[in-house]
Amino acid sequence: MKGILYVISGPSGVGKTSIIEGTLKRVRNLVFSVSYTTRKKRPNEIEGKDYFFVDESTFKSMIERDEFLEWAVVHGNYYGTPKKFVEENLQKGFNVLLDIDVQGAMTVMKKVKDAVYIFIAPPSFDELKQRLIKRGTENEIDLQRRLEDAKKELSYIPKFQYIIVNVNLNESIDQLCSIIVAEQLKVERFIERLGEYRIFEEGGKADARCGA
Amino acid sequence: MKGILYVISGPSGVGKTSIIEGTLKRVRNLVFSVSYTTRKKRPNEIEGKDYFFVDESTFKSMIERDEFLEWAVVHGNYYGTPKKFVEENLQKGFNVLLDIDVQGAMTVMKKVKDAVYIFIAPPSFDELKQRLIKRGTENEIDLQRRLEDAKKELSYIPKFQYIIVNVNLNESIDQLCSIIVAEQLKVERFIERLGEYRIFEEGGKADARCGA
Repeated sequence: MKGILYVISGPSGVGKTSIIEGTLKRVRNLVFSVSYTTRKKRPNEIEGKDYFFVDESTFKSMIERDEFLEWAVVHGNYYGTPKKFVEENLQKGFNVLLDIDVQGAMTVMKKVKDAVYIFIAPPSFDELKQRLIKRGTENEIDLQRRLEDAKKELSYIPKFQYIIVNVNLNESIDQLCSIIVAEQLKVERFIERLGEYRIFEEGGKADARCGA
Repeated sequence: MKGILYVISGPSGVGKTSIIEGTLKRVRNLVFSVSYTTRKKRPNEIEGKDYFFVDESTFKSMIERDEFLEWAVVHGNYYGTPKKFVEENLQKGFNVLLDIDVQGAMTVMKKVKDAVYIFIAPPSFDELKQRLIKRGTENEIDLQRRLEDAKKELSYIPKFQYIIVNVNLNESIDQLCSIIVAEQLKVERFIERLGEYRIFEEGGKADARCGA
């Protein structure tokens, strides 16, 4: 049986990375797809864990070889999701989590109809601004650009299926875990997996669960 | 803002009551709608907690006064959901949980389009039979009737939105909690509640969470 693709999106600075890290520790059978980017590595980031950091010519040749499920230029940098990694893991039955910008999510939405689209929103604009300032990785121009982009991005909320308002990290992790588990229990997905569960015969199996 | 109606259904003996009890302890802002029945009280059952136990003439006069959201005759007994309790609690903003038979769920489905329909299934037929025998509240004729009904009931699974295969009680409680939380995070519901969350202004609030 094929895995489920979960697409997490939302403005810069909203806390996506922390929510995803907490969720990956708790949910079984879930892998994270590491994106490629031409953005400079931040001091706390790890190559191959947070991103694959590549130069622009490498990125462009990957575009030419059609190696991205989606790619976009965000705040002047390229970001892309490796197609092969996502497809292979879904085929193997793993659920796959993507952390991508809103443009990227719109692209994936056109290509992958049965994915689950989750928007992470800030409690308020002011809160988002404070978080970006606190992160201290942005200069004033970048900060203004990210805030302007965030306004546009919030207008895409109605295109998503779920929204998590990130007020409290632990609650947001709980909420993301709940969405991930609940989607595995959808009857429409279950019907595809009926043979595996064998409810009408003997046996049976249920593996959708949030670890404590 | 209005609460969400969660309708739990599935064959007799599948473990609905235990799953619901565990869930009610963990999920905030959720009330259980106690049904009326003409069935005899089992020794472990409590009036007003498990059911309101009434005689047939009382039940029939409630039908005449249109006091049920749904009612049905199941295994020769009347069961009904009190309309007023459900509607008042939803209006007050509470989420309401119903535990009803499959016939009843079909009736509610026609009346309440935005409710969440969850089927609890046994891991297997044999397991269901063993649980009914273990419960020891059925005579042989009742047992056979419940098993035959269960076969019919399972054919209604595709009408439901979610399925929980009750292999392990704690996992099933986790799964029901996850469904309840996830549904509160649906963008379509969120848009109705936008004013409350005030994401585009200052402030913000998120109360969907499973307690540990």
